[in-house]
Amino acid sequence: MRAVQVVGYHRPVEFADVPDPVVTHPLDAVVRIAGAGICRTDLHILEGELDAAFHPALPYTLGHENAGYVTAVGDAVDGLAVGDPVIVHPAVTCGWCAACRSGATMHCPTWRFPGVDGWGGGYADYMLTSARSLVKLGPRTDPADVAPHADAGLTAIHAIKRLAPFLGPRSTVALIGFGGLGHLAVQLLRIYTTARVVVVDASPERLKWAEAYAPDGVAEDVAGLPPVDAVLDLVGEHGVPQEAFAALRKGGVYAVVGYGGDLRLELLDMINRELTVLGNQIGTHSELAELMTLADQGRIRLETRRFPLDDVAHALAEVAAGRVLGRAVLVP
Amino acid sequence: MRAVQVVGYHRPVEFADVPDPVVTHPLDAVVRIAGAGICRTDLHILEGELDAAFHPALPYTLGHENAGYVTAVGDAVDGLAVGDPVIVHPAVTCGWCAACRSGATMHCPTWRFPGVDGWGGGYADYMLTSARSLVKLGPRTDPADVAPHADAGLTAIHAIKRLAPFLGPRSTVALIGFGGLGHLAVQLLRIYTTARVVVVDASPERLKWAEAYAPDGVAEDVAGLPPVDAVLDLVGEHGVPQEAFAALRKGGVYAVVGYGGDLRLELLDMINRELTVLGNQIGTHSELAELMTLADQGRIRLETRRFPLDDVAHALAEVAAGRVLGRAVLVP
Amino acid sequence: MRAVQVVGYHRPVEFADVPDPVVTHPLDAVVRIAGAGICRTDLHILEGELDAAFHPALPYTLGHENAGYVTAVGDAVDGLAVGDPVIVHPAVTCGWCAACRSGATMHCPTWRFPGVDGWGGGYADYMLTSARSLVKLGPRTDPADVAPHADAGLTAIHAIKRLAPFLGPRSTVALIGFGGLGHLAVQLLRIYTTARVVVVDASPERLKWAEAYAPDGVAEDVAGLPPVDAVLDLVGEHGVPQEAFAALRKGGVYAVVGYGGDLRLELLDMINRELTVLGNQIGTHSELAELMTLADQGRIRLETRRFPLDDVAHALAEVAAGRVLGRAVLVP
Amino acid sequence: MRAVQVVGYHRPVEFADVPDPVVTHPLDAVVRIAGAGICRTDLHILEGELDAAFHPALPYTLGHENAGYVTAVGDAVDGLAVGDPVIVHPAVTCGWCAACRSGATMHCPTWRFPGVDGWGGGYADYMLTSARSLVKLGPRTDPADVAPHADAGLTAIHAIKRLAPFLGPRSTVALIGFGGLGHLAVQLLRIYTTARVVVVDASPERLKWAEAYAPDGVAEDVAGLPPVDAVLDLVGEHGVPQEAFAALRKGGVYAVVGYGGDLRLELLDMINRELTVLGNQIGTHSELAELMTLADQGRIRLETRRFPLDDVAHALAEVAAGRVLGRAVLVP
Repeated sequence: MRAVQVVGYHRPVEFADVPDPVVTHPLDAVVRIAGAGICRTDLHILEGELDAAFHPALPYTLGHENAGYVTAVGDAVDGLAVGDPVIVHPAVTCGWCAACRSGATMHCPTWRFPGVDGWGGGYADYMLTSARSLVKLGPRTDPADVAPHADAGLTAIHAIKRLAPFLGPRSTVALIGFGGLGHLAVQLLRIYTTARVVVVDASPERLKWAEAYAPDGVAEDVAGLPPVDAVLDLVGEHGVPQEAFAALRKGGVYAVVGYGGDLRLELLDMINRELTVLGNQIGTHSELAELMTLADQGRIRLETRRFPLDDVAHALAEVAAGRVLGRAVLVP
Repeated sequence: MRAVQVVGYHRPVEFADVPDPVVTHPLDAVVRIAGAGICRTDLHILEGELDAAFHPALPYTLGHENAGYVTAVGDAVDGLAVGDPVIVHPAVTCGWCAACRSGATMHCPTWRFPGVDGWGGGYADYMLTSARSLVKLGPRTDPADVAPHADAGLTAIHAIKRLAPFLGPRSTVALIGFGGLGHLAVQLLRIYTTARVVVVDASPERLKWAEAYAPDGVAEDVAGLPPVDAVLDLVGEHGVPQEAFAALRKGGVYAVVGYGGDLRLELLDMINRELTVLGNQIGTHSELAELMTLADQGRIRLETRRFPLDDVAHALAEVAAGRVLGRAVLVP
Repeated sequence: MRAVQVVGYHRPVEFADVPDPVVTHPLDAVVRIAGAGICRTDLHILEGELDAAFHPALPYTLGHENAGYVTAVGDAVDGLAVGDPVIVHPAVTCGWCAACRSGATMHCPTWRFPGVDGWGGGYADYMLTSARSLVKLGPRTDPADVAPHADAGLTAIHAIKRLAPFLGPRSTVALIGFGGLGHLAVQLLRIYTTARVVVVDASPERLKWAEAYAPDGVAEDVAGLPPVDAVLDLVGEHGVPQEAFAALRKGGVYAVVGYGGDLRLELLDMINRELTVLGNQIGTHSELAELMTLADQGRIRLETRRFPLDDVAHALAEVAAGRVLGRAVLVP
Repeated sequence: MRAVQVVGYHRPVEFADVPDPVVTHPLDAVVRIAGAGICRTDLHILEGELDAAFHPALPYTLGHENAGYVTAVGDAVDGLAVGDPVIVHPAVTCGWCAACRSGATMHCPTWRFPGVDGWGGGYADYMLTSARSLVKLGPRTDPADVAPHADAGLTAIHAIKRLAPFLGPRSTVALIGFGGLGHLAVQLLRIYTTARVVVVDASPERLKWAEAYAPDGVAEDVAGLPPVDAVLDLVGEHGVPQEAFAALRKGGVYAVVGYGGDLRLELLDMINRELTVLGNQIGTHSELAELMTLADQGRIRLETRRFPLDDVAHALAEVAAGRVLGRAVLVP
């Protein structure tokens, strides 16, 4: 089958012809890819920025935002049949450890991260995963339409559910960075919290797009806002974290999803303002299922732009250039 | 193998010679029973009181508080090997539904309840269960010593963790019913809450025993106490529930584990006192694992009296007569 | 000043000419009434149904859903000035007890309930309360428009915030009883929870009205629904509680606000279905302030029908006959 | 009366003869000081380290850990009488704002901090505070014995209650810094959490003292430990924060109470390990009342060394030199 691989850092992706994946473990599943979202993390991977964290063996197939149709399952799998439309949770987890048992699957100490840690991802015709990672989609849902939820939406719902207990109708959240993830996050903030949401983005074009999502205001710069109760930082670099952190009111929360940069905390200030910092990884399987329910109910809108898998180089270039409003999805 | 079965209601148990269980599903496990706790529910079963709730086909093998050694596992099972000492969570669950995914396994809609719903339990030499139901024990732990935790301890830890958010150092809990479950509950209340605990039991002999667990007082009757912030009712019949409910302070919580009786709520009173009623089933797999950690750390003491499986009739009679302080355990 | 009083049970209210209230305690406040909501509780009071719970000395002035303008405050009061528009929290609380300190003011053991427990309420030109009970309104808000929030809205927001942790996008709530309180509750369920909401009311006229609030469906009878995850029972009598309780799925929650009837719990069922029952009193001062923020932001709509105070007899008759959709408000 | 004042930074404290405080506001209270704890913050103040945060006008009287006897109250005060033994919550708060209303008094935007922000503290014969800040002590309690709870104990209980939801019996907490605050924190960790507690302190003498509090182990250096689930950092400087942060397991929590230093977060790491950072200010009035209940019940032991107020210079020197195990208290 076709597979788009990272073959070296600071180099373009390459197509490879690799064997179709097959079920070998009783909990395995193979998915025919109907849509593979392109995430900024894929660009970071190609620049080698995740090498220290995951040290994958090269080459391997990119793609961690996948959805498609089941083509095979192992014989310990229940409730999933060949042909079922599914979205693929990005983590392959064991099911036996304390984290898996409690539902916090992404803290499984032996988890694998297809498309990121060297396990083959979904920039391909098929991918192998665990049946434990699949969420069955409703019959009305086209997998290619929801693929980016597997990471962008999942990370947003997870971060926002952690943030929600800190917020009420009298709170204001600054959502920083309005892109593919951001346009989902603003909707999820309105579903899961009662706070006012101000969207911050340095790009006037993106701010204009943000207005369509009817937030309670937009701003080019967090520094110009009155103090806020929480920041959801989807940027995480270029000086944004420190500036956003400074904008917090007493008792405030800095929730971070974007990365690349760092944040220096003066501990006297942490104490005097009694601040909280929440790092957010991807979410749980239950959160992905919950998100798919929202998508099925038509309560969350995901803007996508499709590119044929064969045009992956062009698609990556468009994403890198910031020319995709919403999320790019590779389709067969 | 030997198996002790319920063959009809209002009739004694009978020994049967049944085939040894074998693994047929990739997630199955077979456990050689080292200890099977006797629960009051076993007596209720023999009186037919659970027939309406579970309508098991008779005959079947009793016993839902089991621990022992793994003798076989299916080929989808990870992290468990033949010979491992284990305690058996009383529910066999699917692993795929929303409840299982979130860790609240006992709400699995297709759960099975070996020893209660017709699936063979642990009053036997071996039992078949799901490997998903097993918790591996520490090397220092004798399975027969902890078997009753599989239901008595598990139910207590679960009920108490649900109750804990309502309690603080200025709260008083009345723990009603001091027996096998009660002596675990009083210890777990002191581990998981900061409340004062008053033990209530109509039996002077049991109250005397309770004093050894150093609670903050004992009483023969809840009606004689000053209003309490919470009741943990392990009796659930004989008029106790209504009397206990009346003892609650404004904002109070009635947490129930015992059953058999009923409780009538006047809704004007529910509102004026703003009361909460918590029904408690068994706990989750994670809660059983947590409990085994406490047992391993020596932080919880379980008093047991052992009977050979061949003396099961005598053991049941002793339990029925209230002559076992602590918990009766059948051993090979 | 004019005051409308309960002078005996099963008798009509009567007008009295009573002295204008004055500030005597440093925390006192006097409010000129701009709107006094009529609650079904006022009808219950006139039938003597709350006598056993509150044993007020007769006669006294009715009215516990009040809003208006501050005319005087004691000299320990900060942040409130004569002329400020305010809504009046229905409880007068001490500010010193553990409940007041933690914000759960309605659990104050020495609380008073003007309009219900014999302390004069707001069916009058002025009322005396504690400045601690006032929530300042935004300049755009007409007190008469929001008066019913003081009890109807406050009870709803409180009950729904307690219920919210049990609910997610895959949950269904049956909201039983669609009237003045119900039309607020359906909106608050959509703000504070992500659940689907089905409105149940025996009256076709009220169900038709309910459709305007765009819930996820309506039904005449809870018994005809598939099992639900939660019930919010605003009726609480006429057999509704038992029927609603039976409709709960495993792990379900019965939250009660309506009263008059009772509910019988079989404890074996409470345990097997692991159910929760939440009694709900009025809410906290913080919850009322939060609700006023929502009202100010235009996120919650309260339908009212105004009656001059002089027409109170007619207004009570209209409410008793069920001819007021929304909430009746007495105005000067 | 006598008052010990900060008259300039990097200078010794000085005695002043100032007027006795008197009640002027209806919520005021005057307390005759029976004990005033010495906190490391007092040393930081004298070095000018809190000037930027609080910019107090000099001179002013030190002391924010106070207990004693009520000598006068304003006429809006209920439930407190002259002669009552009390501990003084370190914050003077308004009682009207959203934070005060919800019980999170220390987030009151107009709060004052006697002994720190220029308002006179308790290194004196008397101090003026708000009656809202007082917690009445039990008749068996000597105010001088509990004074340090007003800040040291209060900060510990608050930080630990925020940390507790992240912990269970399978968790390990590293408690870093074993001094006056630390010996309270280890006890409170055992009361409010079920985690194992390892005490880390660079001083062998302090580690030896720590053993008396029977934790689950001690260590000179957090870097030598296996990864921990949480850190409670009572040091907050000298490189400890960064080292402690590195010791966290995936999903871990860094809770900080000590200050002076800083902590640099790499956001990719924050996300990959999904870490949480909790800044902790002092606690709420309710938490102080809860702590006094624990003290009254004999469940928490506070080691103190008393110095006459006249020997304050010697007392400060002993604290600065680290020669006080436990907490220094100034007495009349």
